[in-house]
Amino acid sequence: MTQTGGRPRRADARANRDRILDVAEDVFGRGGETASTDEVARLAGVGIATVFRHFPTKAALLQAVLVRRYDRLRGQAEALLDTPDPGAAFYGFFRHLVADAATKIAIGDALLDAGGDDDGAATRASAGLRRAVGALLDRAQQTGAVRDDVELPEVYALLVATSRAAAHGDLEAEVKARMLAVVFDGLRPR
Amino acid sequence: MTQTGGRPRRADARANRDRILDVAEDVFGRGGETASTDEVARLAGVGIATVFRHFPTKAALLQAVLVRRYDRLRGQAEALLDTPDPGAAFYGFFRHLVADAATKIAIGDALLDAGGDDDGAATRASAGLRRAVGALLDRAQQTGAVRDDVELPEVYALLVATSRAAAHGDLEAEVKARMLAVVFDGLRPR
Repeated sequence: MTQTGGRPRRADARANRDRILDVAEDVFGRGGETASTDEVARLAGVGIATVFRHFPTKAALLQAVLVRRYDRLRGQAEALLDTPDPGAAFYGFFRHLVADAATKIAIGDALLDAGGDDDGAATRASAGLRRAVGALLDRAQQTGAVRDDVELPEVYALLVATSRAAAHGDLEAEVKARMLAVVFDGLRPR
Repeated sequence: MTQTGGRPRRADARANRDRILDVAEDVFGRGGETASTDEVARLAGVGIATVFRHFPTKAALLQAVLVRRYDRLRGQAEALLDTPDPGAAFYGFFRHLVADAATKIAIGDALLDAGGDDDGAATRASAGLRRAVGALLDRAQQTGAVRDDVELPEVYALLVATSRAAAHGDLEAEVKARMLAVVFDGLRPR
């Protein structure tokens, strides 16, 4: 798919980049010791040089994966702002984030190990998701689905706490669901 | 405090052991890169050989520290089983465990780094604490202070989740308190 003897065309380069990100999200999202840039190149069907042309370091690759994931989640949250049932949107998205957490935490930990988020792009993307959750919370409070005396910091702390607990892996699905049910009951007005 | 030319007397050896454990709990409980067996020996005022006579490996030292801490917490929980207000005992002890969590997590992580809990003594001590929390939960449920449709697995998951969130360090005390208030409201009968 490259021009004969030349560099890949822009559209091919873009497709390669997307495929590398998809595979990297999958490989590093599973976590574990075997996750590596080599494995990403192999599964994406490109040479390691192509990976490094797009992402000069492992940290750059992981950062791009994490930013894309945060941005996607933020987009999902923003799309829910127009739904007719803000309570269902808030609680449903909370549940969705907890279910998604293991992958996000594995990628975030790998990024930390690889030297971190040097220019803060992942931190900014994470803050964007947090703001979107804050907007869902506001709407759910306006309709009385969430008590109006709680604020985003403790709601986000609970989200992070239950996400980490759920991602830890040794909790049965039923226990995770009952754990969230307790938190949601605590968030509902009496 | 040793017999001239001989080994320490039994009472001295015991006092040394206790002092080493106290200092190790403090040093490793603070976490960080500088925590080491050398620093424990120095702050306990004993030679490194004395530390290694009592605890042949760093893992053995950390395991003993963690076992003692779990046993102490279990004792505190059991002492609360006789109080006249089982609801206050349960919620108060939950809060106490969350406040205590940063130290316990730092020691547990150091133990993991040092090669782990090979004979399972720390795991057994942790299970003992969990059982004692279960007994506090039972009593609080019997008196109606905790709803009777929750079970220990999700209560413990919430305890671990909020402990990890609180230990993470970037939460203000007020946010931690409000986070726990939401969980406690979720645990109270409607």
